[in-house]
Amino acid sequence: MIVVLKPNVKPEQIEHLKDWIHSLNIDTHVSVGENHTIIGLVGDTSAVDIDLINALDIVETVKRIQEPFKKANRKFHEEDAVIDINGVKIGGGNFQIIAGPCSVESEEQICSIAQSVKASGAGLLRGGAFKPRTSPYAFQGLHATGIDLLLEAKEQTGLPIVSEIMSMEHLPLFEHVDVLQVGARNMQNFEMLKELGKINKPILLKRGLANTIDELLMSAEYIMASGNENVILCERGIRTFETRTRNTLDLSAIPVLKKLTHLPVVIDPSHAGGHAYLVKPMALAATAAGADGLMIEVHNNPEKALCDGPQSLTPAAFAEVADLVFKIRPYACTYNEKI
Amino acid sequence: MIVVLKPNVKPEQIEHLKDWIHSLNIDTHVSVGENHTIIGLVGDTSAVDIDLINALDIVETVKRIQEPFKKANRKFHEEDAVIDINGVKIGGGNFQIIAGPCSVESEEQICSIAQSVKASGAGLLRGGAFKPRTSPYAFQGLHATGIDLLLEAKEQTGLPIVSEIMSMEHLPLFEHVDVLQVGARNMQNFEMLKELGKINKPILLKRGLANTIDELLMSAEYIMASGNENVILCERGIRTFETRTRNTLDLSAIPVLKKLTHLPVVIDPSHAGGHAYLVKPMALAATAAGADGLMIEVHNNPEKALCDGPQSLTPAAFAEVADLVFKIRPYACTYNEKI
Amino acid sequence: MIVVLKPNVKPEQIEHLKDWIHSLNIDTHVSVGENHTIIGLVGDTSAVDIDLINALDIVETVKRIQEPFKKANRKFHEEDAVIDINGVKIGGGNFQIIAGPCSVESEEQICSIAQSVKASGAGLLRGGAFKPRTSPYAFQGLHATGIDLLLEAKEQTGLPIVSEIMSMEHLPLFEHVDVLQVGARNMQNFEMLKELGKINKPILLKRGLANTIDELLMSAEYIMASGNENVILCERGIRTFETRTRNTLDLSAIPVLKKLTHLPVVIDPSHAGGHAYLVKPMALAATAAGADGLMIEVHNNPEKALCDGPQSLTPAAFAEVADLVFKIRPYACTYNEKI
Amino acid sequence: MIVVLKPNVKPEQIEHLKDWIHSLNIDTHVSVGENHTIIGLVGDTSAVDIDLINALDIVETVKRIQEPFKKANRKFHEEDAVIDINGVKIGGGNFQIIAGPCSVESEEQICSIAQSVKASGAGLLRGGAFKPRTSPYAFQGLHATGIDLLLEAKEQTGLPIVSEIMSMEHLPLFEHVDVLQVGARNMQNFEMLKELGKINKPILLKRGLANTIDELLMSAEYIMASGNENVILCERGIRTFETRTRNTLDLSAIPVLKKLTHLPVVIDPSHAGGHAYLVKPMALAATAAGADGLMIEVHNNPEKALCDGPQSLTPAAFAEVADLVFKIRPYACTYNEKI
Repeated sequence: MIVVLKPNVKPEQIEHLKDWIHSLNIDTHVSVGENHTIIGLVGDTSAVDIDLINALDIVETVKRIQEPFKKANRKFHEEDAVIDINGVKIGGGNFQIIAGPCSVESEEQICSIAQSVKASGAGLLRGGAFKPRTSPYAFQGLHATGIDLLLEAKEQTGLPIVSEIMSMEHLPLFEHVDVLQVGARNMQNFEMLKELGKINKPILLKRGLANTIDELLMSAEYIMASGNENVILCERGIRTFETRTRNTLDLSAIPVLKKLTHLPVVIDPSHAGGHAYLVKPMALAATAAGADGLMIEVHNNPEKALCDGPQSLTPAAFAEVADLVFKIRPYACTYNEKI
Repeated sequence: MIVVLKPNVKPEQIEHLKDWIHSLNIDTHVSVGENHTIIGLVGDTSAVDIDLINALDIVETVKRIQEPFKKANRKFHEEDAVIDINGVKIGGGNFQIIAGPCSVESEEQICSIAQSVKASGAGLLRGGAFKPRTSPYAFQGLHATGIDLLLEAKEQTGLPIVSEIMSMEHLPLFEHVDVLQVGARNMQNFEMLKELGKINKPILLKRGLANTIDELLMSAEYIMASGNENVILCERGIRTFETRTRNTLDLSAIPVLKKLTHLPVVIDPSHAGGHAYLVKPMALAATAAGADGLMIEVHNNPEKALCDGPQSLTPAAFAEVADLVFKIRPYACTYNEKI
Repeated sequence: MIVVLKPNVKPEQIEHLKDWIHSLNIDTHVSVGENHTIIGLVGDTSAVDIDLINALDIVETVKRIQEPFKKANRKFHEEDAVIDINGVKIGGGNFQIIAGPCSVESEEQICSIAQSVKASGAGLLRGGAFKPRTSPYAFQGLHATGIDLLLEAKEQTGLPIVSEIMSMEHLPLFEHVDVLQVGARNMQNFEMLKELGKINKPILLKRGLANTIDELLMSAEYIMASGNENVILCERGIRTFETRTRNTLDLSAIPVLKKLTHLPVVIDPSHAGGHAYLVKPMALAATAAGADGLMIEVHNNPEKALCDGPQSLTPAAFAEVADLVFKIRPYACTYNEKI
Repeated sequence: MIVVLKPNVKPEQIEHLKDWIHSLNIDTHVSVGENHTIIGLVGDTSAVDIDLINALDIVETVKRIQEPFKKANRKFHEEDAVIDINGVKIGGGNFQIIAGPCSVESEEQICSIAQSVKASGAGLLRGGAFKPRTSPYAFQGLHATGIDLLLEAKEQTGLPIVSEIMSMEHLPLFEHVDVLQVGARNMQNFEMLKELGKINKPILLKRGLANTIDELLMSAEYIMASGNENVILCERGIRTFETRTRNTLDLSAIPVLKKLTHLPVVIDPSHAGGHAYLVKPMALAATAAGADGLMIEVHNNPEKALCDGPQSLTPAAFAEVADLVFKIRPYACTYNEKI
């Protein structure tokens, strides 16, 4: 961290600031320039609050040089992380499609979708049992029953399962769920992140609608700092002024994350846009840009299509997308080398 | 809700859609136009997922007419809500300043600030014991000790206290805290909102950094629908592209909220900007625009100014701001009438 | 356009509104519902100001059904437009890479880059002679000399050239430039758009940093309504809260635009991110998503690399990207069918 | 400007960079730290492209210390600028309300509004003769006739007039217009800004919908650097994700601008929100925050209310707002001292 002081700062003020920095167990290296004195902070500055220093009267500007995340930082972990989910690997060249319905509705629904997406090449099954809904009056999921149905589909197909957890009180229900998903709205539910760091399951961490890439990494850091390093990052669209799409899928997050972290990066093209016709182009784009995986909503209910998700593909449409994804993969960006 | 169908939709498709709507216990009123058929939904549409209908193949567009919030809706509750906090009232013409330090640090700190802000006219004391921090390595608050110190300050001054709760597991610690604050990052932690609806304390609900005004009201609705109607709304800045301020304080939220809801609206000018020099102008502006209250950070530690919050006022600066606030109040916007 | 009136509107108010709508040469179709009266506007509503109607006292809400753009609307022009640039075609299955330096600097520079990008498969040469710069003190381009150098490169390679025009007063200088580029900052310089509609050259219209897709199409409509239908649309990144990239490239704009308009869509992966390492993944992603072309910055100045653009590729890096782009093209999304 | 180099940069690379910086007539001051070498740039860095340096391979990070604007910078001009508009002063404690209709429609309309707003305390008259409209099919203003009508109202009331110019070709028509307004969409029409710097009239420069405060100041700098220092800045709402208001009025821009520049700051509460009910609270708020002026839309056409602007006040409503504004002024923030 580089702290640039304002002109005309008094020596005792500089000493005061240095003393305070030293009290944080950080060394200082002072460089007196023509107009400005610069203090370099040497040591682990990850706990230093940059906003606080920035607002001090005597400080002109501050610049963080070292990223404040450590365990999630590629600088300290050059090799790609490979997350092993009951034998299904993601990261380090291993690419996976996670597919399934928005909500688990019935045994027939989830098992039939599971079988069809498996046949098309999906490596994991997703399905919501606890659904975060903007309205308290909207359907909130089948809860325990939904989890049971997912486990049934897992047994029938062998596909590991991914499902969202919304409160740590529900943890016992997730005992046999393979990957716990943290939804976008809970990305900065720090108490939950700490608890998730104490368990021994991969976590799929979704980026919040208005969270920066750095904040996503800091939330991963919360989980990792508590002991669980099996974190998969997921970009699912950010909030912008554009109204033709529900959110704006930020595909640049792929190369940016690949540069900053060794954790796998998955893209969810279904939620971002909010329309089924956007899923295919965004799935292909994410693949070409070098994502480690995709998370795609699939429904199978032609009779009751009205209640299926607006952003879901039919199994047939999913099969077509998966086929093109696998054809594009050989030409996709790779991030083996240091960038 | 008005559903406009695409041209050339077949009669059986319309019947199919109507059947599905009726299955939600909502009546339909169909109007056949020259190009477009329009279906009006008659009844309580608050549980209807507009995105889902919008994405149906046969639908051109959907428009919600009735807001999806009911208990928080001024249409069904014309009179301003007045929240009574141990005798200190807010809303319905009652204006309050909530002041105090970002974090509780020591008995001397919190009690001395409490006394000085009370002398300047503050009606409630704020102080953080559990601090949501982006980094797991940053100071996270004094926890139980912090709450104890707040209670000590309450006893000395008689000021009711406001403090943030980050997990329902901590609820027992908040037994004597007068107002529970839900931070911006937990605004859509729906499981927490449901739990807060079951207790009998006023909730100060902060708007999320990227949440719309409607989403804020839907989160209030979660609390109210579970039984607790004592909700105070708080605007604290939204995330935009501007970098000179930490967030952009959205003061238009005051008249918009006053039109949509009867709940009190408080403005936090300290967090939005991230710099002390922005607090005074934004506090005066919020007052003139007709806010029901302000939430202002105050620190008192001239000896150790380095570790106090960058956006905090000294007690003397706070006294000056409070004085001007009370002078502007008589000329501020009022929202007695229906807008 | 559907206008939903508030409950309890008086018949004479409805008549007043209808009269006013009729005065705009638009018919009305009134439907009286249980709570709400709905007025359907029948006819060409493209000139109707939706904000104005929306704000009338008696109006609950308004919804536009017909897009306000006509000449740029795929509904009235199902076939993809194919723009012919001196024999180089773009759109309707014809894919082109436009490559070249940010600024034209010297004959050697522009001719050498032109030759190398042509060899790698680029179909058009780009180069800035007039540069829009945030600072009046920054280098503003070589102006007339820059155009002359571009024409020299065109003569040597046969590549048609694309260059930005910043004022219609400079038009005579662009006599032999093949495609006139309108920069993001001039996207809503309506007087300029009208003038560009009167000339007979393809226009490459860049989306403004904070402009919606609909506004981009309305700006295209300005050019087309004045007589010039040769418009190429270009997405180059929008402004969001994310700071790791200069702007956020909105690749969902490809399928959205392909649905709404028949005009070709080009993606500029160089400007959005602001870093060379982002160009390759975003170029591949845009290709996979079905863009009609790419616009990529290339520099060739190893000796003086300091002054070349931070987002530029070397000719060798460009050759590698182009090669992968052409390999991905066969599997890219297509938009032949109606979506 | 402080340039922090990456670890392990070779001495010849540092020399190369220094040589290049010196070639821009800027001195360097190198400080070698434990991990990082820091180069301080000493001299006028306003023309240096920070993005360019930031993207160099050997650079870890860059931080600008000196703002890139000079003529608009309060550091070099401590006293508030006072703009004299035919005897009506704004800035330096002089507060003005600019009021009038969105579009000039008829002599009766503009003269009657002019008289009533003058009676309520407005100091300047606004009215649009050239209207920037998103759609080419929408009404674009009365053009020359509109200007003539404004001049007639000026003669009748003595109020100086403000009107928007959309192309420098129209300049002769504006000979007797007192203040030329640059609309938000032309804020970065740099060629126009340069031309406006060569004339001798005050310019009211509106902030673009997605432009930062720094970019607004750089656009003011374009005008000032060309010779015209009579620039009035105007905040009119920025584009965010919130949809209840057309744009989000950024009132924090007042203290931020007051700190950075000596130019007067005017707030337009009418355009930002897009609804008349938002004008009063935002006008009062802007006044309390210490704006130097307000720009408010007023219409007077009760018979033809349908075609008046949705965000306009009636003369009676304007009178009430103006009265409260003048009552709040004595308690408003002031920025006499250095901040």
